[in-house]
Amino acid sequence: MKINGKHYRSVWPTGEDAIGIIDQTKLPHEFATLTLKSAEDAAHAIRSMQTRGAPLIGAVAASGLALALRADPSDENLTATSDMLRATRPTAVNLAWALQRIVDAVRNRPRAERAALAWREAQAIADEDVAMCESIGRHGLALIREMATQKKRKLNILTHCNAGWLATVDYGTALAPIYMAHDAGIALHVWVDETRPRNQGAALTAFELGGHGVAHTIIADNAGGHYMQRGQVDMCLVGTDRVTANGDVANKIGTYLKALAAKDNGVPFYVALPSSTIDWSLNSGRDIAIEERSEDEVLKLTGRMAGGGLATVEIAAPGSAAANPGFDITPARLVTGFITERGVCAASEAGLRGLFPKNESKAP
Amino acid sequence: MKINGKHYRSVWPTGEDAIGIIDQTKLPHEFATLTLKSAEDAAHAIRSMQTRGAPLIGAVAASGLALALRADPSDENLTATSDMLRATRPTAVNLAWALQRIVDAVRNRPRAERAALAWREAQAIADEDVAMCESIGRHGLALIREMATQKKRKLNILTHCNAGWLATVDYGTALAPIYMAHDAGIALHVWVDETRPRNQGAALTAFELGGHGVAHTIIADNAGGHYMQRGQVDMCLVGTDRVTANGDVANKIGTYLKALAAKDNGVPFYVALPSSTIDWSLNSGRDIAIEERSEDEVLKLTGRMAGGGLATVEIAAPGSAAANPGFDITPARLVTGFITERGVCAASEAGLRGLFPKNESKAP
Repeated sequence: MKINGKHYRSVWPTGEDAIGIIDQTKLPHEFATLTLKSAEDAAHAIRSMQTRGAPLIGAVAASGLALALRADPSDENLTATSDMLRATRPTAVNLAWALQRIVDAVRNRPRAERAALAWREAQAIADEDVAMCESIGRHGLALIREMATQKKRKLNILTHCNAGWLATVDYGTALAPIYMAHDAGIALHVWVDETRPRNQGAALTAFELGGHGVAHTIIADNAGGHYMQRGQVDMCLVGTDRVTANGDVANKIGTYLKALAAKDNGVPFYVALPSSTIDWSLNSGRDIAIEERSEDEVLKLTGRMAGGGLATVEIAAPGSAAANPGFDITPARLVTGFITERGVCAASEAGLRGLFPKNESKAP
Repeated sequence: MKINGKHYRSVWPTGEDAIGIIDQTKLPHEFATLTLKSAEDAAHAIRSMQTRGAPLIGAVAASGLALALRADPSDENLTATSDMLRATRPTAVNLAWALQRIVDAVRNRPRAERAALAWREAQAIADEDVAMCESIGRHGLALIREMATQKKRKLNILTHCNAGWLATVDYGTALAPIYMAHDAGIALHVWVDETRPRNQGAALTAFELGGHGVAHTIIADNAGGHYMQRGQVDMCLVGTDRVTANGDVANKIGTYLKALAAKDNGVPFYVALPSSTIDWSLNSGRDIAIEERSEDEVLKLTGRMAGGGLATVEIAAPGSAAANPGFDITPARLVTGFITERGVCAASEAGLRGLFPKNESKAP
């Protein structure tokens, strides 16, 4: 998508020995790019959330693994680097999936060919992600168009966290249908949950939507239920880091609360995902390990001072500790449907099997 | 309650021509007090949330009205000042209730006596609030003690916003039972919702609990549902700004989401309130006007820099607007019970009538 009229992806190859990313920890205050030259660089970028979003970190990790094979294409290094990268974010399944694709692509190939093969596979993962997001966008657009036709007025869509083009390679998952609906001339407005503690909504989703000209309003995470009660939300649309075989959804902490409010008020709650997000190996969300992140993300915040510089401030009572679970599980019973690259389905094993009968976790 | 070993109330008379308050906008970074000498001072302090919390603003407004009558005890000034103070926060019913008590106390009395009568009534409102909070604490303690006896382990209680001694004149509403349970030696830990956008949880509740030595952990507002799903919350305990005759609860934005999660996970959800918070004139929460506050509360945050000074930073994407509803309505069906100064009752008209048969809104 575009920033100041220039088209960007969120990750791109720089020759054959490095990748470029947007430093998302600097957004929305500053637009800066970074060059990653090694698997260690990629791991640091993922761990520090310079690059984030379940689909995107898969693509970045895959390129990182490919870079590691240039220096040492041995099986030992393949396994060790893959394990190291997989451990950077334990909840997102795309990460493990993308790394496995690289491993599978090179395992039985001569060592001399491995770096090039891995690099090609990593770029294919990125390109396929773009194609999947385009498909998700088209299927979601049909849902939005149908609702707009029924309601005959501007639609209000609520989203949580950032599942836009900055979280994928381009287009986004949850935001792809919104961009396509906007481009198709459907009148809509987006409620953007600020998404504490890291504020990906206020910082990234608002930045994306503003850049594309989509009407939006930032709200505290506490406010969405109120707007649903008052009839001011027509649809919730979020991304996900992992969907289990039964349709349970792991997504940014707080998603579950919005799903409860949507159910309580009869608001459709859709989850947009590429099939690489489905973890067929887990039967239920209860089996998902929830990443516990640093308390500093709750206790400190970085922003722009009036003078223009950035400052980090402590906001809580001195001496009080914080806890910071990164994700929660939204039970399938609260989800109206999944929007995937192959179409829309029920949030259930039967629904998922209908679209993906063979446990695929590859691109369409 | 105590700060650094010294006992404070949150409002106190300074002679007969002023009141002192704690400037709560400076907490937790700095402990500063303010002297209010007029109704305009009181209105400014309430509007800017230097003093806040439904019971406390009633007490401050009552003293403010009394101060106005020293300068001009006319009926015209009584009405105009009362109207002006009532408009400072439209959602809290205690404010209107406290002002009406002052009006009733002076209306048919000679003008020369009005200022002294009003002052006495305002101090009585403050003293009665302390007594009511003590009673709420005792009744809530019984609930907590019963649960501790059943579960035979440390209890985890989740609270939202600040309904502690800083929100009342002393003790608090929701926090009074917690202080009493802690003092009674019952092992407990409090999950403190940070309570965006103004962070009264992270700033005030954590400050209060830390000052009194109660174990607590600050969490993002998004996190409570997750902890309830994982069995790590035994009880939710919150305050309220207004309860309608049918038991619907207006409280800080986001309370509704926690009540939904409590219901979904079988966690008892209690609301602590003095009877002055009951608005018998409204049949349902749908009739409550919800205060819309400044978008700056969402877009900007103030905190301590590493050097010790305070800074205000902008956290959102430049150019994006925010919306900021101050309260939401938790339907009575989601509330396990009310803890009042007369005991615990069901969140229903029948429950409230059982304790308050005569529509009283006076102290016990």
